[in-house]
Amino acid sequence: MVKEAVELHKDKFIEQLKEYLSIPSISSLSKHKNDVREAAEWTANALKEAGMENVEVISTDGHPIVYGDWLHAEGKPTVLVYGHYDVQPEDPMDLWETPPFEPVIRDDKIFARGATDDKGQLFIHIKAVDLLMKEDGELPVNLKFVIEGEEEIASPNLAPFISENEEKLACDAVVISDTSFIEKGQPAICTSLRGALAMELIVTTANSDLHSGTYGGGVPNSIHALVQLLDSLHEENGRIAVDGFYNGVPEPTEALRKEVAEVPFEEERTKEDLGLETLFGEEGFTFQERVGIRPTLEINGITGGFQGEGLKTIVPKEASAKISCRLVGKQDPQRVFESIERHIHGFKPAGCKVQLQPYITANPVAIDSQNLFIQKAASAFEEVYHASPLFPKEGGSIPIVEVFGRVLKAPVVLMGFGLPTENLHAPNEHFHLENFTKGLETVCAYLKKL
Amino acid sequence: MVKEAVELHKDKFIEQLKEYLSIPSISSLSKHKNDVREAAEWTANALKEAGMENVEVISTDGHPIVYGDWLHAEGKPTVLVYGHYDVQPEDPMDLWETPPFEPVIRDDKIFARGATDDKGQLFIHIKAVDLLMKEDGELPVNLKFVIEGEEEIASPNLAPFISENEEKLACDAVVISDTSFIEKGQPAICTSLRGALAMELIVTTANSDLHSGTYGGGVPNSIHALVQLLDSLHEENGRIAVDGFYNGVPEPTEALRKEVAEVPFEEERTKEDLGLETLFGEEGFTFQERVGIRPTLEINGITGGFQGEGLKTIVPKEASAKISCRLVGKQDPQRVFESIERHIHGFKPAGCKVQLQPYITANPVAIDSQNLFIQKAASAFEEVYHASPLFPKEGGSIPIVEVFGRVLKAPVVLMGFGLPTENLHAPNEHFHLENFTKGLETVCAYLKKL
Repeated sequence: MVKEAVELHKDKFIEQLKEYLSIPSISSLSKHKNDVREAAEWTANALKEAGMENVEVISTDGHPIVYGDWLHAEGKPTVLVYGHYDVQPEDPMDLWETPPFEPVIRDDKIFARGATDDKGQLFIHIKAVDLLMKEDGELPVNLKFVIEGEEEIASPNLAPFISENEEKLACDAVVISDTSFIEKGQPAICTSLRGALAMELIVTTANSDLHSGTYGGGVPNSIHALVQLLDSLHEENGRIAVDGFYNGVPEPTEALRKEVAEVPFEEERTKEDLGLETLFGEEGFTFQERVGIRPTLEINGITGGFQGEGLKTIVPKEASAKISCRLVGKQDPQRVFESIERHIHGFKPAGCKVQLQPYITANPVAIDSQNLFIQKAASAFEEVYHASPLFPKEGGSIPIVEVFGRVLKAPVVLMGFGLPTENLHAPNEHFHLENFTKGLETVCAYLKKL
Repeated sequence: MVKEAVELHKDKFIEQLKEYLSIPSISSLSKHKNDVREAAEWTANALKEAGMENVEVISTDGHPIVYGDWLHAEGKPTVLVYGHYDVQPEDPMDLWETPPFEPVIRDDKIFARGATDDKGQLFIHIKAVDLLMKEDGELPVNLKFVIEGEEEIASPNLAPFISENEEKLACDAVVISDTSFIEKGQPAICTSLRGALAMELIVTTANSDLHSGTYGGGVPNSIHALVQLLDSLHEENGRIAVDGFYNGVPEPTEALRKEVAEVPFEEERTKEDLGLETLFGEEGFTFQERVGIRPTLEINGITGGFQGEGLKTIVPKEASAKISCRLVGKQDPQRVFESIERHIHGFKPAGCKVQLQPYITANPVAIDSQNLFIQKAASAFEEVYHASPLFPKEGGSIPIVEVFGRVLKAPVVLMGFGLPTENLHAPNEHFHLENFTKGLETVCAYLKKL
């Protein structure tokens, strides 16, 4: 019955989605501030039209948060749907086959910035409400929407908003569609996200660059000191050599290792695709474990001394590196930062000043795949796609997921409808319309099952 | 008698020098190509006016070489004077008190780009010829001038020119005034220059930057590999850890160590001036030895991965570093390069491609301070300045000095008239007029003594 309703309305829904995607709501560029607000208003209207109540566009220090609810399903669980209406910048512009904010459909895919991340996926939930309301005049569960406009800039205002509105946002589960299938036809419910910790290490040895003819060999060199410090962070076998770094990292159980091993991975193809001579990582773990359930410490950038063409024979006064860690289990970002800071000060070569500046942090997230809200989502996927979803452990971090889970004390259901090939954050981003329509069926089925 | 002649003509000479300095002959900037040629013509005219013969402006693949000779002092030695008429770029412009190519005199110093490096010092030799010719109608020695316009860009065309014109340039000694006193009133004849070898090390691990959430911990990281390689180049005590690097480095004799120790050095003042917490270098050697007579390996620049503000969580595909060595004794730049190459390949971490690209090389130079041409120069300095010159070992490199000495088989007399405080290569470059006039006396006295 839902299937027929989807068939009946999908053309109109897709036209509406095109309108949504044509708003260039790039949150990181201040010149698009009004476009971001326009997308917030558009989202709020779409919620109202679908039948949501108490719809608000809530101003913050940055871009607005859109809220709406429908709370008349007495005795039924309350589900909070989270999504974001902001998008990534479009550059590099010249690689787009069609303009990023002029949505077009080719091969049953809709091409536009934000198509899969996250307007297209979010719109599934809004239109599922619309369909259910059309069908029954009411919803099978209590529903709340929290839709932000700052996901692509690390949600600076949403985390405090959640903490300050614990009661308003109280729910039994948080549902987010902002992740991907394993591949076409193989749904996935992500049950683990690594935490994140980033920092910059700055080493200073003198008040100016010095001539290497006059001073070379007789004074400290900031780059020498930096490489010495950075090299001390790992053992040769890939293990991180920072005392206390692994505190809180659980030994993987056999069951977990088995679950991780189930996620498909082709070593030769990966090496060829990425141009790698070999894989490399912590001894004793598989590639999938290293990138999914083990913590990491990676240097993301390094700079110091002369950067131009050719050569300048200087002893550089300053050098710096950007470092980020992925965290798992009960690793605490603040404690990990402190252990790295202690390590750096302990290994500091003579004659240099070091400064370690923390940036973003996020706690790791682990979700029990046996939770009822996850199992019902799995069963909705099965019903529509005729395939059991896998439960992958994502190596990346979505900081807000941990905040939702922790503050609202509710399981987070990461039921994504994207595909890993849909160019998110890249030119020619798109979304498969098959997953838009099947997504509508899946969400309707899910809410009914609850 | 020379003293009187200097007094009589110095105002006119300084006016001419101002004209010379007003030509912006910046060899590194192609937009100044015509200015560089104008300076070459100006130099050639000045040589002719002074009384030199066979004056030529010789075209090369780059900027011209100016040649002139006077060979009528039968039975007397032949001296070749080398200098350069090209100058460094003027930037940073905003730190100049007066425009770099509008020479002015303040406090008995002439301020302009090229004042001390090297037009002012070179002009001493041209005007010494003028004075001697005015006085006697002839010169006390046979004289050749070779003046290039590419010293500031590493003399790419002069070295082959010398090799191809061995006979034309044959001489008993090469005299160069392009170095400095120890301090005001304390002349110096440099008797050692370190050699130089520069290179770039490039490490590649993948064909694109990879997302650290998806691949971090499971693939090689080019910056990790680079810092590991760079860190392996030194021992903790500052000694260079490359097998074979020290081949050809002489153990310093007690006499040499004494000579080096005589050059004044104030540790506390140096540390304060440069903002150093401590000095650092090869164990078992003093600061003066480390920067003067020991070889070095310094990282001059490093770059890789994300360079912008904030953070980008990537595993970088490529990282690189610029490295330069100062060489001494019988170290051969080519062999040292090969030993570093072997080291790099031997220590190469798994999964990375390394490339080591050589740049400039120069052999080290050691000049026997007991040579007659050096001793006569010392005695000329003494006569005019009433101070015995010191014989410092310079840490820097002037590649062409070694070529002159080796190809022409003649001692090189580095009798500089600059002061270490005269801002060469920096804003507000200047030259003390006292050393211009006393320089004239010294050079006249020197040529007569030969």
